[in-house]
Amino acid sequence: MTRTYSLAHLAQHLGAELVGDPDLVIEGIANLLTADSRQISFLSNATYQKYLAETRAGAVIIAPDLAETFAGNKLVIANPYLAYAKLTKLFSRPSSLQGIHPSAVIGEQVELGEGVAVGPNAVIGNRCVIGEGTIIGPGTVIGDDCKVGKFTRFAANVTLYEDVIVGDECLIHSSAVIGADGFGFARASDKSWVKIYQLGRVVIGNRVEIGATSTVDRGALDDTIIGDGVKIDNIVHTAHNVRMGKNIAIAAMTGISGSVDIGDNSTLSGGVGVVGHISIANDVHITGMSMVSATITEPGSYSSGTVLAPTREWRKNAVRFRQLDSLANRIRSLEKALQKHDLS
Amino acid sequence: MTRTYSLAHLAQHLGAELVGDPDLVIEGIANLLTADSRQISFLSNATYQKYLAETRAGAVIIAPDLAETFAGNKLVIANPYLAYAKLTKLFSRPSSLQGIHPSAVIGEQVELGEGVAVGPNAVIGNRCVIGEGTIIGPGTVIGDDCKVGKFTRFAANVTLYEDVIVGDECLIHSSAVIGADGFGFARASDKSWVKIYQLGRVVIGNRVEIGATSTVDRGALDDTIIGDGVKIDNIVHTAHNVRMGKNIAIAAMTGISGSVDIGDNSTLSGGVGVVGHISIANDVHITGMSMVSATITEPGSYSSGTVLAPTREWRKNAVRFRQLDSLANRIRSLEKALQKHDLS
Amino acid sequence: MTRTYSLAHLAQHLGAELVGDPDLVIEGIANLLTADSRQISFLSNATYQKYLAETRAGAVIIAPDLAETFAGNKLVIANPYLAYAKLTKLFSRPSSLQGIHPSAVIGEQVELGEGVAVGPNAVIGNRCVIGEGTIIGPGTVIGDDCKVGKFTRFAANVTLYEDVIVGDECLIHSSAVIGADGFGFARASDKSWVKIYQLGRVVIGNRVEIGATSTVDRGALDDTIIGDGVKIDNIVHTAHNVRMGKNIAIAAMTGISGSVDIGDNSTLSGGVGVVGHISIANDVHITGMSMVSATITEPGSYSSGTVLAPTREWRKNAVRFRQLDSLANRIRSLEKALQKHDLS
Repeated sequence: MTRTYSLAHLAQHLGAELVGDPDLVIEGIANLLTADSRQISFLSNATYQKYLAETRAGAVIIAPDLAETFAGNKLVIANPYLAYAKLTKLFSRPSSLQGIHPSAVIGEQVELGEGVAVGPNAVIGNRCVIGEGTIIGPGTVIGDDCKVGKFTRFAANVTLYEDVIVGDECLIHSSAVIGADGFGFARASDKSWVKIYQLGRVVIGNRVEIGATSTVDRGALDDTIIGDGVKIDNIVHTAHNVRMGKNIAIAAMTGISGSVDIGDNSTLSGGVGVVGHISIANDVHITGMSMVSATITEPGSYSSGTVLAPTREWRKNAVRFRQLDSLANRIRSLEKALQKHDLS
Repeated sequence: MTRTYSLAHLAQHLGAELVGDPDLVIEGIANLLTADSRQISFLSNATYQKYLAETRAGAVIIAPDLAETFAGNKLVIANPYLAYAKLTKLFSRPSSLQGIHPSAVIGEQVELGEGVAVGPNAVIGNRCVIGEGTIIGPGTVIGDDCKVGKFTRFAANVTLYEDVIVGDECLIHSSAVIGADGFGFARASDKSWVKIYQLGRVVIGNRVEIGATSTVDRGALDDTIIGDGVKIDNIVHTAHNVRMGKNIAIAAMTGISGSVDIGDNSTLSGGVGVVGHISIANDVHITGMSMVSATITEPGSYSSGTVLAPTREWRKNAVRFRQLDSLANRIRSLEKALQKHDLS
Repeated sequence: MTRTYSLAHLAQHLGAELVGDPDLVIEGIANLLTADSRQISFLSNATYQKYLAETRAGAVIIAPDLAETFAGNKLVIANPYLAYAKLTKLFSRPSSLQGIHPSAVIGEQVELGEGVAVGPNAVIGNRCVIGEGTIIGPGTVIGDDCKVGKFTRFAANVTLYEDVIVGDECLIHSSAVIGADGFGFARASDKSWVKIYQLGRVVIGNRVEIGATSTVDRGALDDTIIGDGVKIDNIVHTAHNVRMGKNIAIAAMTGISGSVDIGDNSTLSGGVGVVGHISIANDVHITGMSMVSATITEPGSYSSGTVLAPTREWRKNAVRFRQLDSLANRIRSLEKALQKHDLS
């Protein structure tokens, strides 16, 4: 099942300059240290330049300014990391699903585009429209009245509730849940919670990837919206009525509360939390495990939290955190005392 | 499939005072700014009072003290937000599942109440008892010896392990897992872990909602207990032997460690962590991403963490956090020096 | 279905000294306070010694130095908690799954070992090899070319992507996802993300437990590796190219970023985050909700974060955190002023 390509073919695919043997057969991609003579590697980080001398890679993708430092076969291109990314697709394994498996259950008035594959025990609700070339994995359940674009792939055991819209060329990973109810309740006078049925939809753009066991809730009245090119990692929660722009990336274990707006190209590291009803501007970066508690209007990097330390040391400092305001007031008193005595 | 109601019907349903056209046909609910003449809206927050003048809503739910400020059709009632919550149910879409789908697999000695619906590829274990009107979504798996009450709904791809008890009118969302093993191991002398098989059950009360991909583990010896009216958001972990009272609400990405007791009506925001073997009193609120590291005996709001800042600024302060105890000692030394010289 | 054992049998099973009635029939395990005369209990924590006088347990597992304090039937052994763990297996319920359910879908060229059980609506891909005695729960989907060892158990609705290796005697809980794509993208010049197809595998050792809705991503080029005896709780994310040693335990809601190495026997509490491309030594413990932001080379316990406080008090101190660097500089200025005037 191994796919192989000539080095010339890879150069052409990337638009890279080939220096070396165009007929070299490449069977895979590997890191500089582990690559063998039938694999291509890449140098994307100057830190690893020292490995060029040792590498046994058949060829290396390298930037023009470093190309002279490597004598072997090479593909010279401005952004080797991006070139590597483009090559990975050539060596990836396509889905083996084809056609409609006899155990799949397909509802009434469903429109399936050409080449749609539906895996074993998948379920498609009534009145769904599934675009050309889309793949629906085993055990995946798609609710009534969903619309899915072309060449989108649902892995196994994904769930879409009813009335969810997904664009073209998306990839939704296993156990992800799209369109569950937003978390909305009104408190009655006896402190019990009255459910606010969630009447909005989820609308997902094109080229969106959503990680395993991540959730995107449907809107309360309006829709939850995920823009084109957004990439969401595993175990990320997107609450009702969130609106994401384009090309946002969100790492694992992050939670976005209700009615948050996130601007184009922003990136959230892992474990981040965003409180509800705020906005994050375009081109913002949030570092890991930070809590975003207010609107961010300016691009840039933002953080919260404290730094790891041995627990014994941490405990002493954490106790002092609870005295911080009083410590600050004591500093002010000291300053005033020195001023009073003309000692400052 | 749109449901419509006269304004008079909605007023009667809510017990609200109707001012305006009782025959107005209402087709849906929307926010003040987006509603059209066939939709009803609501004013629950004084901030949005400014939108009353612009709204094209066919009718507005409004509190008595503000009713004079709106000239159009209105339903006047003390708690418009609660009234809105009650109306959402009227406009929600009922499940399209009916009867037992032929692809469902139902075990031996199972008792299904009247009107139970079992979706495609759902699996029900042996000796389960499922109450009247309960709906079991496609791909949902219910283990042996489970007991489920009336009018409860399992969305698609839910999993219940064996011996789980779920009450009436619950809603369990997709990829939620109820009754998996609590995380219990004893360390052997060679540092390997010996599994503590989890022999308790999960017992869930009535009107409980559990979010998508959330987990509630079974107890080690005794049961894990979720009280009536508890609402749990997506991606929330409830460990073994947690005992929750009534009407608790827990937002997404929160983790509750083992043997924690949580009192009635308490609310945990998103991303909260609760360490094991502690209690949280009734009517406590924990703000987002806080860690509850000790028992809380008094009602009120509690927090931990630090506030977001530009990363460059944050880094300077985070370094100082590791010096906090020493800074506090230096303040004390300064105070002593001033005292010694009678300068304080 | 209740299993019963004589006290003599339990003593022999544990290698414990039996003091009392060898023929006593034991039907279960319970805590000291709830046990009845047909149940065995254990004393593993001196805090609970006070309950010995009250317990109605038929027998108690107890350490030699405390054995004298209890007059009833007892099993005397050095580590009662470990002994309790070993007994739980005797009272646990085996899976009721047997044979290949007719609704299961099994691919081509699949090798199933003796006694393999495949539940209803489970799906096994092409060319998989499943070892003797392994149990595959209802709705579980195993991708093409997976290899699973002996006596491993997949609960319901688990997903394995293709090319995943799982060892012997593992337990993978429901909605867990093993082998989804690592979160890898290269940014193009227009700020869109180009997917790095993930060409590595996941390789899981023996006696590994992975909790409900946890995810272990496949490697980018090399494999993601989970060592023997690792125990992972629910809702834990393990990113691509993580390498875990042996006997690591990771509590719920924790996220491990890409290319992290974790040493043998280390333990991570709940809600921890580990940034990418760092190492954690053997025998390290991370306390709850800490962020590990740099390599840890020494064994020991590490922490970050702040301590819970009433929100009103917390808010004052959190404001001061943003002034910490400036407060430290003011302390330095005060010290200099006192030095200048010979007052320190």
